[in-house]
Amino acid sequence: MLKVTFRFEHGDDREIFAAEQENLLEVARKANVAIDAPCSGNGSCGKCRVRLVEGELDSPKSRHISDEEYAQGWRLACNSRILSDVVIAVPDIASAYKSRMKTADLSTGEEVRIFNEAKASVEAADIHFINSFLSATVSLDAPSLDDTMPDNERLSRALCAELDVDEVRIPHSVLLHLPSTLRESGWSVRCCGRQDGNIFELMTVSSAADEAPMCGVAIDIGTTTVTAVLTDLETGALLAKGSTGNGQIRYGADVINRIIESTRPGGKKRLQDAILKETLEPLMRAMYAQANISPERVLSICVAANTTMNHLFVGTDADPVRTEPYIPAFFSWDGLMARDLNLPANAQAQIILAPNIGSYVGGDITAGTLMSMIWNRDELSLFIDLGTNGEIVFGNRDFLMSCACSAGPAFEGGDISCGMRATDGAIEACTIDPETMEPSFRIIGPEGQKPVGLCGSGIIDVIAELFHTGIISAKGQFVREGRRISQDANGFDCYVLAFAEESESGRDVTINIVDIDNFIRAKGAIFSAICTLLKSLDMDVSCVEHMYVAGGIGSGINMRNSVRIGMFPDIELDRFTYIGNSSLAGAYAMVMSDQARDKVEELAQSMTYVELSTTPGYMDEFMAACFLPHTNAELFPSLAE
Amino acid sequence: MLKVTFRFEHGDDREIFAAEQENLLEVARKANVAIDAPCSGNGSCGKCRVRLVEGELDSPKSRHISDEEYAQGWRLACNSRILSDVVIAVPDIASAYKSRMKTADLSTGEEVRIFNEAKASVEAADIHFINSFLSATVSLDAPSLDDTMPDNERLSRALCAELDVDEVRIPHSVLLHLPSTLRESGWSVRCCGRQDGNIFELMTVSSAADEAPMCGVAIDIGTTTVTAVLTDLETGALLAKGSTGNGQIRYGADVINRIIESTRPGGKKRLQDAILKETLEPLMRAMYAQANISPERVLSICVAANTTMNHLFVGTDADPVRTEPYIPAFFSWDGLMARDLNLPANAQAQIILAPNIGSYVGGDITAGTLMSMIWNRDELSLFIDLGTNGEIVFGNRDFLMSCACSAGPAFEGGDISCGMRATDGAIEACTIDPETMEPSFRIIGPEGQKPVGLCGSGIIDVIAELFHTGIISAKGQFVREGRRISQDANGFDCYVLAFAEESESGRDVTINIVDIDNFIRAKGAIFSAICTLLKSLDMDVSCVEHMYVAGGIGSGINMRNSVRIGMFPDIELDRFTYIGNSSLAGAYAMVMSDQARDKVEELAQSMTYVELSTTPGYMDEFMAACFLPHTNAELFPSLAE
Repeated sequence: MLKVTFRFEHGDDREIFAAEQENLLEVARKANVAIDAPCSGNGSCGKCRVRLVEGELDSPKSRHISDEEYAQGWRLACNSRILSDVVIAVPDIASAYKSRMKTADLSTGEEVRIFNEAKASVEAADIHFINSFLSATVSLDAPSLDDTMPDNERLSRALCAELDVDEVRIPHSVLLHLPSTLRESGWSVRCCGRQDGNIFELMTVSSAADEAPMCGVAIDIGTTTVTAVLTDLETGALLAKGSTGNGQIRYGADVINRIIESTRPGGKKRLQDAILKETLEPLMRAMYAQANISPERVLSICVAANTTMNHLFVGTDADPVRTEPYIPAFFSWDGLMARDLNLPANAQAQIILAPNIGSYVGGDITAGTLMSMIWNRDELSLFIDLGTNGEIVFGNRDFLMSCACSAGPAFEGGDISCGMRATDGAIEACTIDPETMEPSFRIIGPEGQKPVGLCGSGIIDVIAELFHTGIISAKGQFVREGRRISQDANGFDCYVLAFAEESESGRDVTINIVDIDNFIRAKGAIFSAICTLLKSLDMDVSCVEHMYVAGGIGSGINMRNSVRIGMFPDIELDRFTYIGNSSLAGAYAMVMSDQARDKVEELAQSMTYVELSTTPGYMDEFMAACFLPHTNAELFPSLAE
Repeated sequence: MLKVTFRFEHGDDREIFAAEQENLLEVARKANVAIDAPCSGNGSCGKCRVRLVEGELDSPKSRHISDEEYAQGWRLACNSRILSDVVIAVPDIASAYKSRMKTADLSTGEEVRIFNEAKASVEAADIHFINSFLSATVSLDAPSLDDTMPDNERLSRALCAELDVDEVRIPHSVLLHLPSTLRESGWSVRCCGRQDGNIFELMTVSSAADEAPMCGVAIDIGTTTVTAVLTDLETGALLAKGSTGNGQIRYGADVINRIIESTRPGGKKRLQDAILKETLEPLMRAMYAQANISPERVLSICVAANTTMNHLFVGTDADPVRTEPYIPAFFSWDGLMARDLNLPANAQAQIILAPNIGSYVGGDITAGTLMSMIWNRDELSLFIDLGTNGEIVFGNRDFLMSCACSAGPAFEGGDISCGMRATDGAIEACTIDPETMEPSFRIIGPEGQKPVGLCGSGIIDVIAELFHTGIISAKGQFVREGRRISQDANGFDCYVLAFAEESESGRDVTINIVDIDNFIRAKGAIFSAICTLLKSLDMDVSCVEHMYVAGGIGSGINMRNSVRIGMFPDIELDRFTYIGNSSLAGAYAMVMSDQARDKVEELAQSMTYVELSTTPGYMDEFMAACFLPHTNAELFPSLAE
C-alpha cells in the first residue's frame, strides 16, 4: 500500500493508505478529505485542483492547469492516479467542505426578529401556531402493599384524568426509565407528548421540577447549505439556529451528480451518511448544546428540501427522479420517524417532510411558497428560489403554477474559473468605474481580507458592470481594451479583478469569456423558465406585479443588476422583495403549526407543475435569453434609458 | 495485564487479559465463558468449580472443595483472584451456558401434532385463529410522462381499491426499497401488512412471484430455557421450532440474583444483552434459516415470560419487582416494537407481551392458563407451572386465583451438590431396590452415557425412593446403613447413586443430607403455596378435582413420586395431566389469534393474585410441609396404604 498525506493550508495533515493506481479524488473521499468536485469527478469543472508536494502521480494535463502551474505541481485530483507515497497540498479554495458549522448568536435579536416576523406573517393569514403537543404535571399516590398497581397503569390513570383522554400510549423509550423516574421524582412527574383525539401519546416523563421546553426542529436541506432552527413548541420561541455545509457536496455540487453517485455501489448509503451523520447530527447536537436541551425533548422535526435531497435524506432510490419519466418515490409522505434515520431526537418524534410536487420542485419550494404569501394575494406574483436549481412559482390566491430550471452551479461559483462559495475572500459586490475600468469590491471576511474569488452575487455585479461600462458586448465578448483586459493562463480573454499581488492566493482573480458564457447560460435558464411558465398561461413578463426572491444566494443580491443582465423581469425595483431563506421559515411554520402543515399540503395539491424539459418552445426561449440582457430589448424597457 | 486461558473439556480454548487481583468469575463473564453461578457469585452454591491447570490464583478454601480436590487444583471461580498468567480448566458440569441451541426436527410430526392440538383445544373454546395480517397482490400501471404519480401514491391507490380501505400507511422500511422493488418486479407486487379498521399498515412489498408466508414468532422466555416457534400467520402451520439456554444464567440461576445483578453498574444492559443478543437473536435467526424466511417477513412476535424476565427483556428497572411493595413497571403493556430491542423482524412488528398479574406471576402463567383450559371448566382445577419459581392458578369458569412461591433452583439441580440441568448425563428417573438399596436409573444422553449428576425429575424420584425404602426419615435423615450410605468429601451423610468408577466425571455422584433438606424446603414451598391459596378460599386440597402440570421441569416428572414426597396434593393419578410447555403454546395461540390475546388479557384482569409473603399463615404451612410427605399425614391418605 502507498501512503497518501493530505496537507491543509492551516496544518491538520490527514494520512490514508491507498493502492497503486488508485484515483486521488476517490482516496480523498475515503479519507473524508472533501475536495470540491462539482462535476462529480469527470474532469470538466477543474475545481479539484491540488498540489503535488512529494511523490509521483499519473496525471494527464488538463485545460484547467497551465503549463506553469503543472510545473509547480498543480493537478486535478479527479484525473490523478497514485504511483508512490505522496504528499498532497489541498488549498482552501478546493477544500469545499470544511466543516463550517456555526450556531447563530441570538442575543442580537436579529434572528429572533426574522422568525417573529415569519410567525406574524402566517398568523395574519389565519394560520395559527397551534400544534398537538402538550405537557402535564401529575402527582401520583405512592404505591404500597395495599395499592400495588404497576407503574404504567398508575401513570396512565392519572394522565387520563388530568388530560381528559381515554387512553395513554407509553412507548418503549418512556417505559425504559419509568420506574426510576417515578421513584426519583417522588411520584410527581411532568409528562410531554402528543394528543391525537382521545389518545395521549406519551413521549417524555421527567421530574415535575423539570422546566425544559418541548422542542421542535425545522431544517432546510439545501444542496449546498443546511440551515436549522430549534424552537419551543409551545411558544414558537427561537432557542437556537445553526448552519453548516451539506456534507454531500464532495459527491457533486448539483443534484444530478449526486444522484449518479448514489447509483454506484454503496452510493445511497454514502450520500445518506453524508447528510445524516456528517451534517445533520452534528448540527442538531450543536443546537441542543447551545440551548441546553436533551435530544429526547425534541418531539417533532420538519424538513424542507428539494425532491432529490429528500430522497437521499430518506435513503431511497433517487435515480427514477433523474431519468424519464421522472417519477419520485413520493411527493407527500408522512411515515417517517426520527429513529428511522437515527437522528438525535425523541424516539417517537415524527419527521414531517414538506411535500414535493415534481421531480425538480420539492418541499423547499412548497414550504417557501407558504412564506412568500403569494397564495394569499390578489396580485400576480413570482416567487423564485435561487439556488443550484432555480425554482419558480407564479400565481395568486386563485391559482399557482411552478417549474424548475437547472441554473447549474454558476450562482454558487461553480463553472466559473475563479468562482467560489460565499465564504471568506469572496467578492460579493462590485462596481466598475466606466472611465478607468477599475473595480471596487465588497469582500466577505475580516477587515483587510484580500480577494480569493467571486461568489454568486459578485458574479452578477461584475457581469452587469462589465456590460454596463461597455467592456463586454451583449454576447459576452470583450470590446474594450485596457490594463485590466488581459488573457489568462489558458489564453482566454479575461478581466482582471485583482492582480496576483492584490489577491490572497497570489494568483490573478479573473473572469474570462468562458465564465461569462457559462453565467449567461445560467441567467438565461432562469429568465427563459419565467417566460415559458408565463407563456403556458398566455401571459408574459409584463403581467408580473411583484417578485419575491428567496435563497441563500439571494442574500447579497443586487436586484437592479439582476435585471440589467436580464435574469429577472424588468419591473420596478420596489416590487422586488428579498424574503431570505423561505424554505427554513416554512419548515419552522410547519413544525409549529398544524394549520401551516395543512396549508402547505393544500398548496402542493393545488400547484400545477410544468416540466420545462418537455415543454415546446423552452429551448427557443432559452436561446433568446442567452444575451445581455436579451435578444428582445423590448422586454427590458427601463434599460433603454 | 495477565493472560487467562479458559480450557474447555472438548477443546476450544478462550483467552482474555485480566488485571492482577481481578475476580476469576468476573473475568470469565467478560470473556463470555459461562460458568454456572446460581448464587450469582457469593460463594454459597459451590457450582462455579473450575480447575487451576497452570499459574497462580488467590483462592481461600471453601466447604464446597475438599482438601484432596483443592490439592488437585479445584477452586471456586467466584472467590478466586488472579495472581499470574493462568490456565483454567472449565468442566462441562460448570459450563452451564454452553450454547445448546437446537432446532426441532419437524419431519417426525410430533412437534406439529403438539401445536395442532394446542390450536384445536382453544378453538374448541371458540377462540379462533384469526388475526389482522393479510397480503394482497396488485398490478400497477407503469408510469409515463403522462402519468407521473409518485410510487407511494400509485401503490396506495391500488391497495385501497384492492383491500377496500381508505388509507395505506407506508413506513420507512418499505419506502426505502419501494422504487427498486416496483421496477424490478415489473409493477406487480405482493404486499403484506396489518389491517386496522379502514387503514392498511403496509409491512413488506415484494415481487408478485414471492410466495413466502407471513410469519409470527412465539417465544417462551424461561429463567433457564428459552423456547420459540415460527408460525405461518395465515394457517398456523409450524415452520420451525428452537430452544436454547437463557444466556442470563451466568448472572444467577434465579430471578432474584438476576435482579440484583441488574442493579449493578451496567447491569441492566448486561442482562438485556444476554437475553436479546446472545439468546433470542441467534435462536430466531436459526429458525428463520431452517424455514428459509427473511426477518422482514416476521410481522408479529409474542413473548410469554415471568414478570422479572419481562422486565429484563424490555430493559427496564426490575428492582422494584423484588423490593417491597413489589411494584412492576407494567402488567399489561402493548407499546413494544421488535425494533425497540433490535430483534430480527419486520421494522413494524409489534411484540405482544403476555400480561403479568403480579411480581411473581407473569405472562408465562397467564398464557399458560389459557392453554390449561381451567377457565373453561366447571370442575375446580389447579394449574401449576414448575420451574425455578412455582406458579399456581386455581379455579374454574367462575373464578381464578393465583400465587407464586420461590421453589429455588433445586428443581433445576441448583442448591444440590450433584445437581445439574436436564442435559446429557443427568439422572432423570430412578428407582431403588428396597432390599439391596441399589439404584436403577434412566440417564439423559446417548446409549452408554454414564451419570454426571441429578436433574429435577431425578431428584424427586431419588428422594421419593429413599423415603419409600426407609433409607431416610420423614425429616430427611439417613436411618439405614449399607454400602451406598456413606459420607461425602465434606463429611455429610449421603447416598451414593454412582461410585466414582461408574460416573462420567470420576467423582462419586451422591445426594447428601444438605441436598435433601434443600429439596424438602423446595417441595414444601410448593405444597404450602397450594394449601395457602386454597385456604384463602376456605378450601383445602380435597377440593382439587384436577391438576394440570406444566413446565420444562415437568417433562420427565413422576406424578406418583411427586405425591409421595408431599409436593402435590394426594388426588387420583388419572386426575393429573402433564400439559408440557403451556407458556409457549399460549404465546403461539396469542400470536395467531386476536381472540386468544383478548382472552388472556381477560383472564389476567379477572385473576386474583395472592402475595404469599404477606399472607398470614403461609410460614406455618411451609414449616408443616417441610417433612416427607407432611406433618399432617391425613393430607396424604393414599400413602397410608
